[in-house]
Amino acid sequence: MIATTTSSLLTDLHCSQCGSTHNAFVRQTLSSCCQAPLLAAFNLDNSGLQKADLATRTKSLWRYEELLPVLQPDNQITLGEGFTPLLSLKRLADTFGFSHLSLKDEGLNPTGSFKARGLCMAISKAKENGEQACIIPTAGNAGVAMAAYCARAGLEAVVVMPRHTPDAFKEECIGYNANLIQIDGLINDCAAKVHELNQDGRYFDVSTLKEPYRLEGKKTMGYEIAEQLNWQLPDVIMYPTGGGTGLIGIWKAFHELKALGWLSKEQRLPRMVAVQAENCAPVVDTYLGKQPNSKQYIGKPTLANGLAVPRPIGEPLMLNVLRESGGTAIAVSEEDMLAGVSDLCRYEGIFAAPEGGAIWAATKKLLHQGWLQSTEHIVLLNTGSGQKYLDNVKGQWRR
Amino acid sequence: MIATTTSSLLTDLHCSQCGSTHNAFVRQTLSSCCQAPLLAAFNLDNSGLQKADLATRTKSLWRYEELLPVLQPDNQITLGEGFTPLLSLKRLADTFGFSHLSLKDEGLNPTGSFKARGLCMAISKAKENGEQACIIPTAGNAGVAMAAYCARAGLEAVVVMPRHTPDAFKEECIGYNANLIQIDGLINDCAAKVHELNQDGRYFDVSTLKEPYRLEGKKTMGYEIAEQLNWQLPDVIMYPTGGGTGLIGIWKAFHELKALGWLSKEQRLPRMVAVQAENCAPVVDTYLGKQPNSKQYIGKPTLANGLAVPRPIGEPLMLNVLRESGGTAIAVSEEDMLAGVSDLCRYEGIFAAPEGGAIWAATKKLLHQGWLQSTEHIVLLNTGSGQKYLDNVKGQWRR
Ligand SMILES: Cc1ncc(COP(=O)(O)O)c(C=O)c1O
Ligand SMILES: Cc1ncc(COP(=O)(O)O)c(C=O)c1O
Ligand SMILES: [Zn+2]
Ligand SMILES: [Zn+2]
Repeated sequence: MIATTTSSLLTDLHCSQCGSTHNAFVRQTLSSCCQAPLLAAFNLDNSGLQKADLATRTKSLWRYEELLPVLQPDNQITLGEGFTPLLSLKRLADTFGFSHLSLKDEGLNPTGSFKARGLCMAISKAKENGEQACIIPTAGNAGVAMAAYCARAGLEAVVVMPRHTPDAFKEECIGYNANLIQIDGLINDCAAKVHELNQDGRYFDVSTLKEPYRLEGKKTMGYEIAEQLNWQLPDVIMYPTGGGTGLIGIWKAFHELKALGWLSKEQRLPRMVAVQAENCAPVVDTYLGKQPNSKQYIGKPTLANGLAVPRPIGEPLMLNVLRESGGTAIAVSEEDMLAGVSDLCRYEGIFAAPEGGAIWAATKKLLHQGWLQSTEHIVLLNTGSGQKYLDNVKGQWRR
Repeated sequence: MIATTTSSLLTDLHCSQCGSTHNAFVRQTLSSCCQAPLLAAFNLDNSGLQKADLATRTKSLWRYEELLPVLQPDNQITLGEGFTPLLSLKRLADTFGFSHLSLKDEGLNPTGSFKARGLCMAISKAKENGEQACIIPTAGNAGVAMAAYCARAGLEAVVVMPRHTPDAFKEECIGYNANLIQIDGLINDCAAKVHELNQDGRYFDVSTLKEPYRLEGKKTMGYEIAEQLNWQLPDVIMYPTGGGTGLIGIWKAFHELKALGWLSKEQRLPRMVAVQAENCAPVVDTYLGKQPNSKQYIGKPTLANGLAVPRPIGEPLMLNVLRESGGTAIAVSEEDMLAGVSDLCRYEGIFAAPEGGAIWAATKKLLHQGWLQSTEHIVLLNTGSGQKYLDNVKGQWRR
């Protein structure tokens, strides 16, 4: 085992299906027992960690280093990711009849999306485990983030992306010197290509939930929401859901905060809402009972390319979050998500990704349906900046 | 006078030419005495402020609220700007023979550039002063930032921009519901148009250094560099210079930190380097004695559109910073700035604006010329993300 020189409390990995324990200090992909995602476990019970310890910490997700899996400070590959602002949406709230809306703006992350959180962690651990080259199937943002962190770590990067993805995603990967491979199809077709290219295991496969640490980066959104609200959680969190790492990660974070004693055991947790695109809404369909699961789901491309994940491996974990939290799942049209982008721009000066537009559209819909109360505190997770989507959003502003 | 309810220590404004005092609590443009920029003054001498007070502050430039001009908390129009990461550039340093390089990544600001700092402050004060509509001549980034903060504040916005500016800048302004006016020419031609449109003073004119508060937002980069380096300043700061607010603001900040006692009176300040584009290098030409001043300078467009400011009103203040600090001024070619963008991407995973590429190119040049020592601590200010420049940068990556 590697000498622990950060104060990481990582102990081992647990199979998300059968609960069995796996070694956290070697290369791991899916669990050997069930071929299911592995979840990192930490020694939280008598950690002695105090909320007050955070006051003097760095303004990035590394402020939570005890709760993260990296063991050596040199392996913390950082571009300043995390600790993004939680902004109040006063003008939108006033205009559309809400009393307490906030938005966490993940567009201010390196590479313009929350994917920076997951990939900084995965690539830091890949470096720590001695990997030389990484490969990823991606809808866009995750590939860009992986390419950036690999460049910073000095690792080789291969990015496999749908051909219809806007050029901005592709060009940035090339800039970071990644090997870009384009595929006719969606992210599941890209995953098949990754499998083919990596028969010999030469690359470390950084696919969503196939390695345990992207989730650990993503969960920090949950820590931050709690810390930024002074440990008072909102009533509802609206989350644009593709592979599901954000949804699952935030939920994991809240439970870890309870184990730490930073949230009380009685604290009511937010209802978690999975927002998808009508063009590709596998989790919504399963949640509503239209299909037993998404293993045969056929999706179409959407402007919100991060949501075009037709058969997510994390579906059981996502459904669990929705049910445990008393949340729901909802799909929005391409038109509504564009109008959502426009609203966020005009009323709040926030140029969100279509994924962010989608959650605002969904929030209005759920208020009209009566599922949301106007007096509830609702946190919107805008997962990315609109910048890379400009070619598709251009000229479609609401007047 | 408005009741002070933030803890702002603002006292008055001083004419940068004759030093006379002006009222800080009404609309101000250039000084009435000399038609020169006005500089905000604060009561720093016995403020009682301590560095340690910062520990628990918000992670944005509003952590320095005593040193900022906004009087009412409601007027702090924020999108989470400032407190950007200071990243170490280890791979670039190792590869190119430096021992201590850092980069402050202003691309992580709202709207993708450091212009967010200046415009959040100008628009906050415009709101505080009761303005209804703002107008700006811009090379690109400042206009986008003004449009965003006006949207957030609920003010009308008019942005006047050169027609050759990449579409991404224009489209984002339109998204924020600004009135976009395109001009054949550079920013000085846009300024003439603003003058024409604003004969009746209906708009508040937010031109660089024509109102006093953009500078106050920009100066926070200086506070942050000092704080993030634990009050040990670097030897040199490399700064891409157009209108000059960054250069002048950072220098003002260091002097304010001395007045506060947060830096000792004996502290040696960094040598400040103004980096410009060969296509438009008025400050370099004046600094090198090729012209008495830039009042007749003719500039050409450059990829680094923020540097295309042929006749900056702040030139005397900039020259003063270069001379007082023992700095210098240097111009780089279009080709070298593109290669600089490429280096930052490939070695560090940072997708910088051409302005950021330019400072890295200039840093290598000054090392070869012997003006920089390889052992010095050099801070590069990357003022923006490369995202909006993509159409021009595309396919030009170094192989
Ligand atoms: C902007 C954006 N939002 C949301 C998602 C969905 O991510 P996940 O469900 O894995 O958290 C993605 C994934 O690519 C994305 O790029
Ligand atoms: C990216 C960028 N860098 C640098 C500058 C120059 O700014 P200033 O000299 O006013 O600080 C600008 C101005 O437009 C810019 O957009
Ligand atoms: Zn198992
Ligand atoms: Zn004067």
